Amino acid sequence: MDTYRLYFSPGACSLAAHIVLEETGAPFELLAVPVAEGANLQPDYLAVNPKGRVPALAIPGESRVLTELPAIVTFIARRHYQTLAMLPKAPLGEARCHEWFAWLAGWVHGVGFGGLWRPARFVAEVSLHAAVSAHARQTIETAFAQIESKLPDGRSYALPCGYTIVDPFLLVLYRWGMRIGLPMGDTYPAWTASARRVLERPAVQRALHSEGISLEF
Amino acid sequence: MDTYRLYFSPGACSLAAHIVLEETGAPFELLAVPVAEGANLQPDYLAVNPKGRVPALAIPGESRVLTELPAIVTFIARRHYQTLAMLPKAPLGEARCHEWFAWLAGWVHGVGFGGLWRPARFVAEVSLHAAVSAHARQTIETAFAQIESKLPDGRSYALPCGYTIVDPFLLVLYRWGMRIGLPMGDTYPAWTASARRVLERPAVQRALHSEGISLEF
Ligand SMILES: N[C@@H](CCC(=O)N[C@@H](CS)C(=O)NCC(=O)O)C(=O)O
Ligand SMILES: N[C@@H](CCC(=O)N[C@@H](CS)C(=O)NCC(=O)O)C(=O)O
Repeated sequence: MDTYRLYFSPGACSLAAHIVLEETGAPFELLAVPVAEGANLQPDYLAVNPKGRVPALAIPGESRVLTELPAIVTFIARRHYQTLAMLPKAPLGEARCHEWFAWLAGWVHGVGFGGLWRPARFVAEVSLHAAVSAHARQTIETAFAQIESKLPDGRSYALPCGYTIVDPFLLVLYRWGMRIGLPMGDTYPAWTASARRVLERPAVQRALHSEGISLEF
Repeated sequence: MDTYRLYFSPGACSLAAHIVLEETGAPFELLAVPVAEGANLQPDYLAVNPKGRVPALAIPGESRVLTELPAIVTFIARRHYQTLAMLPKAPLGEARCHEWFAWLAGWVHGVGFGGLWRPARFVAEVSLHAAVSAHARQTIETAFAQIESKLPDGRSYALPCGYTIVDPFLLVLYRWGMRIGLPMGDTYPAWTASARRVLERPAVQRALHSEGISLEF
């Protein structure tokens, strides 16, 4: 079988795609594009993905990489469901995955963390960046409370039917919450229980290890 | 067959879901939630969709509405593919739809038009809203040029394989471009040709007509 190539940056949202690759047993190699060093804006990467973002997935036989996390994880999960079905077959279960993803990627990541870490995407004047970042932090905290309320106590995963493509992305966002200093364990007990469960999975451990990052509760 | 209920606001992104319902022959009724009048933030609508956004789709037998445009159109297209297949069966074709949607919904709509029309989502201080809106307008223009470049001359639809769930949303964004005064016909000829073709479809005409809106080139 052909080998994918995942362009990733350690700990970025690309980690969710990396985990889904590990989980489904799809054959892949990794190519690091460290965002912290600006590698995503270098000409060689822009030639691969003109958007200058990670993740991107090179697919054998396909001239153009596939971009956008929701598209990448859906594609991998659909094509490699033999090992582990991470995308429900029922249209409504599948739609609930897309509902989570659209909100997590577009709002929580794009508007929340995007505003906090990349205020220049929203306003040019450097003097206004602090105001944008401060507002974005509130957006994140409100959204995190909503995530907590969607994971009723005892439910281990985002969807009642089990572990899906949503859960690795929730783990990435959980880790980002720790990185920005939110008291995750105390404030979001249901989400913390879910994150712990996801973290125990061997495929998740392998992905974190090969990106050289960790998550400690 | 059971009847869906689509919560929409005239001309909002919900129009794309409305068109997909018309196209696929899924049975539905409409419930107007005019955003211009703030109906989306009234208690009765917040009880239906706590996010206070349109679209939302009520599904018979399902207690919770389905939210987020990408999830709604995917769900309808998958469940009602008999009339018109708007979601490619091949995993890669499907993934290209999701790639378009994630970018159009998360970036072009969420960050672009969201910033232009709803700067309060990005920064609290009213005095800073103009700066956010001005930057968002640039984001939109840059994104629109990218859309144009993705529709090589002569290609009628977003995906080479034909008319998909992406095209109705592109039509909504095209109409928004006209509303904000961009010279759409002159600046984006390929996109204009594509929009014209989509607009000719009877299902699209029906949806525009029943929302009481129009699109003139
Ligand atoms: N909508 C994109 C967003 C990807 C994205 O923003 N990735 C971040 C890393 S988490 C990035 O590449 N940032 C680099 C930059 O903005 O320069 C997706 O879902 O894949
Ligand atoms: N991520 C949502 C966005 C929906 C959205 O923002 N809808 C707009 C209308 S186009 C809205 O309801 N705005 C009302 C408001 O912000 O108060 C989706 O894809 O459905």
